[in-house]
Amino acid sequence: MAGRIDSLQELLVQQLRDLFSAETQLIKALPKMANAAHSEELREAIEQHLIETERQLDRLQQVCNTMGVKPRGHKCVAMAGLIREAEEILRGDMDPDVRDAAIICAAQRVEHYEIAAYGCARAFAERLGMSDEAQLLADNLAEEGAADKKFTEIAMSGVNSAAIS
Amino acid sequence: MAGRIDSLQELLVQQLRDLFSAETQLIKALPKMANAAHSEELREAIEQHLIETERQLDRLQQVCNTMGVKPRGHKCVAMAGLIREAEEILRGDMDPDVRDAAIICAAQRVEHYEIAAYGCARAFAERLGMSDEAQLLADNLAEEGAADKKFTEIAMSGVNSAAIS
Repeated sequence: MAGRIDSLQELLVQQLRDLFSAETQLIKALPKMANAAHSEELREAIEQHLIETERQLDRLQQVCNTMGVKPRGHKCVAMAGLIREAEEILRGDMDPDVRDAAIICAAQRVEHYEIAAYGCARAFAERLGMSDEAQLLADNLAEEGAADKKFTEIAMSGVNSAAIS
Repeated sequence: MAGRIDSLQELLVQQLRDLFSAETQLIKALPKMANAAHSEELREAIEQHLIETERQLDRLQQVCNTMGVKPRGHKCVAMAGLIREAEEILRGDMDPDVRDAAIICAAQRVEHYEIAAYGCARAFAERLGMSDEAQLLADNLAEEGAADKKFTEIAMSGVNSAAIS
C-alpha cells in the first residue's frame, strides 16, 4: 500500500486501484478458464462474463477519471492468489466433468471477492456523496452477483450431476 | 493440487482441505485484525468471529473424520493472498478510523471467499447424498454469511461515518 491513507476518499481510491488490478488480472485468466471448460454452457457463461469484465474495467476507469486519479500501479495480491488456485485446477489431472465443477468453485471464489470489494467501494462512494460513481460501482456489483448466481445454476442444473456420473 | 481428481467426492475432499487451510490461516490472522481495530464494536465482532472460526474448523475436522480423510497438507494460496492484503492494511500508515473501514474491506473479502467455498462444498455433499456432512457445511456457511452482514452493519452504522469525519 503506497503512502499514508488519511481519508475515506483516499481509501476509496485504494479500493478502486485494487479492483482495477483484480479485473485486469481476471481478463487474462478468464479465456484460459473458458477453454478448459467441458460443458458448453459453462464455457459460454465464462465468455459472457469476460465481456462483462471488460465493461467493468471501463466503468472503473470512468470512476477514476472523474476523481482525477490513475488506477494503475497497484497489484491485487488476493486476486493473484485466486487466479493461481484457478490455474492449479486447469493444470491438474482431472476428469473433464469434475474439472467443470472445480472451475465453478474457482470462478465463484473470484466473483465473491469482487462482490465484497465492490460492496465496500460503493458504500464509500455513497457515504462521500458521489452518487454517479456509486451507481457505476453498483452496476459492476450487480453484474458480479448475477454471474455468481449463473454459475450456481449451471452447477445445480447439470455440472455437479455430470461430475458424479 | 496433489493426485488425480476423478470424482465429485475427491473434489469435495480437495475443497475441504482448502477450507481447512483457509480457516487455520484465518485463526492466526484474526487476533491481529482485532488488535488493530479502533472501534470497540469492530474489535468485538472480530473476536466473536474468531470463536466461530475455531468451531468451524472443528466441524470441518468432523466432516473429514466421517469421510476417513486427513484435512492437513494443503495450503490455500488464495487465503494466503487475502491475509497478506489484510496485513498490508494493519502495517500501512492510516488514520485509525479509516483503518477500521479498511479492516472491514479485508474481513468481508475473507468472508466472501469462505461463502463461495462452503457453498460449493455443501452443494457437493448434498449431491453425494451426505446429508449430515452437508448440514455441518451449511452451519459454517450460515455463520460466514452472518459475519459478513455484521461487518456491513458496523460499517454502515458508524465506521464509515467516523472515517469521513
